[in-house]
Amino acid sequence: MTHKIAVIAGDGIGTEVMPEGVRALQAAAKRFNIDLSLEHFDFACCDYYLEHGKMLPDDWFDQLKDFDAIFYGAVGWPDKVPDHISLWGSLLQFRRQFDQYVNLRPCKLLPGIKSPLANRKPGDIDFYVVRENTEGEYSSIGGKMFEGTDREVVIQETVMTRTGVDRVLKYAFDLAQTRPRKKLTSATKSNGISITMPWWDERVKAMSGSYPDVSVDQFHIDILTANFVMHPDWFDVVVASNLFGDILSDLGPACTGTIGVAPSANINPEGKFPSLFEPVHGSAPDIAGKGIANPIGQIWSGAMMLEHLGHHEAGQAIVDAFEAVLAEADPSVLTADAGGKGTTESLGKAIAERI
Amino acid sequence: MTHKIAVIAGDGIGTEVMPEGVRALQAAAKRFNIDLSLEHFDFACCDYYLEHGKMLPDDWFDQLKDFDAIFYGAVGWPDKVPDHISLWGSLLQFRRQFDQYVNLRPCKLLPGIKSPLANRKPGDIDFYVVRENTEGEYSSIGGKMFEGTDREVVIQETVMTRTGVDRVLKYAFDLAQTRPRKKLTSATKSNGISITMPWWDERVKAMSGSYPDVSVDQFHIDILTANFVMHPDWFDVVVASNLFGDILSDLGPACTGTIGVAPSANINPEGKFPSLFEPVHGSAPDIAGKGIANPIGQIWSGAMMLEHLGHHEAGQAIVDAFEAVLAEADPSVLTADAGGKGTTESLGKAIAERI
Ligand SMILES: CC(C)[C@H](C(=O)O)[C@@H](O)C(=O)O
Ligand SMILES: CC(C)[C@H](C(=O)O)[C@@H](O)C(=O)O
Repeated sequence: MTHKIAVIAGDGIGTEVMPEGVRALQAAAKRFNIDLSLEHFDFACCDYYLEHGKMLPDDWFDQLKDFDAIFYGAVGWPDKVPDHISLWGSLLQFRRQFDQYVNLRPCKLLPGIKSPLANRKPGDIDFYVVRENTEGEYSSIGGKMFEGTDREVVIQETVMTRTGVDRVLKYAFDLAQTRPRKKLTSATKSNGISITMPWWDERVKAMSGSYPDVSVDQFHIDILTANFVMHPDWFDVVVASNLFGDILSDLGPACTGTIGVAPSANINPEGKFPSLFEPVHGSAPDIAGKGIANPIGQIWSGAMMLEHLGHHEAGQAIVDAFEAVLAEADPSVLTADAGGKGTTESLGKAIAERI
Repeated sequence: MTHKIAVIAGDGIGTEVMPEGVRALQAAAKRFNIDLSLEHFDFACCDYYLEHGKMLPDDWFDQLKDFDAIFYGAVGWPDKVPDHISLWGSLLQFRRQFDQYVNLRPCKLLPGIKSPLANRKPGDIDFYVVRENTEGEYSSIGGKMFEGTDREVVIQETVMTRTGVDRVLKYAFDLAQTRPRKKLTSATKSNGISITMPWWDERVKAMSGSYPDVSVDQFHIDILTANFVMHPDWFDVVVASNLFGDILSDLGPACTGTIGVAPSANINPEGKFPSLFEPVHGSAPDIAGKGIANPIGQIWSGAMMLEHLGHHEAGQAIVDAFEAVLAEADPSVLTADAGGKGTTESLGKAIAERI
């Protein structure tokens, strides 16, 4: 069986880390005898926009819909195209049109990576953020009135649906059930956001009835971010709305020192549409073009993709490989962010060889 | 000139830390010859709700409006009254009806307080979060449709106004201008929240025109929370919408280890209505009744209140006093959270004596 993968490098360092992501994928495919067919696409980046006046061709949906997965680099380059145009015209379209309603991000303290937190070691922090990825605070409903005057009012709506919330909660509860601690934390703000959030809490409570073996707690998002810093060991699976999940899934990796290398999966669990795998880091205009970006985020995302496609061993082999290379800490191999003097390529090659 | 202060202890540990807040205030008033007249109120707490079916008497506005400031403890006790009822019925009413449109919270590494961040010492972290405090994501507009069915949709609106945003930006720019670094950071999410947030960015840009000496940068809220952990030394004054400011002003104190002792000011800068001063910590039902809550949040809030009333030296004397008591680190004085075996009262008394 062949897995068809659409490869989209995107902008900035996306184009630099993608070759290393592909290198690791191919190494794992070879070792585990997996048949991968990769096809590259040049849209969904700002240069495409500058040429075509849009981020995607009109038939992007048909071009991509039969792939088994999308392997994405990074998108956005504010000096070329404002972020809300580039992002809403690409990544957020994929998430929505392909109904990738789960955004999954591991937060894990790795060997050889320095955490900004005091006295934490590998093993202490190991949790997932499960983020609702299609609705909620990221709506396009709203507008302005009395524009340009002192009376100006700007409104944007948060829209949650029972279907949308229940299915991501179910995913999170299912995930918690597979883990030794079986613990789920819900991010809320029902004391301040007085309509959607008390209702979110009700849905969590309703869903928990079907999972008597999963222990559930909840925190308001303000104190929850504080607890990520103070007690990251408390967490196992954290489920959150689109915006809260966005925040928590940057903050979590920041606490483990892995924000530059964290991966993410945008999943359509039913497999009706392709899922999308991308590093958490963006296109990083400040270091783009220098060949010094750390490729682990891309490579780790590739591991999540193989896992999603049913190749658990191959995914694990990639993770083991970069953990081993990090633990070795050879400065001629590692990129500057990881304390070395190497390049995107030297680190990518070392990981591929290890696989 | 007499300053009239309304004192509302509220719920849980609010009733325990308030006497120490008052003790410190009175010590400073005596030393600096300030005429304070304190009046205590028993509403705006959950027991009042249980008795009266509402958090506040009907004439609360008239009862409080002529005070120079409100000194508040903490409110909320979920086992008695759901948070969204107790908070919307008290604190959020004060903020809105008294137009306390600035919520100001210092984030400062203190001597003798352990930060969860590695390798940071007093002096390294010292910034303010300026939070919009009356509008934005905390609206009461929205509702449900198809309630109780699979088609259920729940909507809540974020409402921003030019008046509301510009005035809090102005406050933040003014504050930045008084500080040595003259640096302002704006919290945005214009790449995801596509209507209100790009507009927020425009207002920041427009306001910055009047402050050529203030340097301005902006981060999306996701990476901004990450940067609070990774680079807290970058920040001087951070300005944010109601929700983002709520998050950042819990996360900031968490990063400095001071979440249990951080103060906050809800300010009506024009002085048309009383401003309100309260610790960041809540009512803490888990430790309430034990006499072990750390009173510094309440005491520090009192210092901000004196500062606001024009008594800069007296406010500073309170801060110097608790910093000195913390630095001394006498375990018989300090509360358990600060590594001691003392009580709310022992710590409060030591600070008052020092003043
Ligand atoms: C209690 C709650 C409504 C409140 C808020 O979110 O504003 C609190 O978290 C705060 O920051 O003062
Ligand atoms: C780029 C932006 C729209 C996006 C988001 O907020 O979803 C990013 O921050 C992410 O988390 O994938």
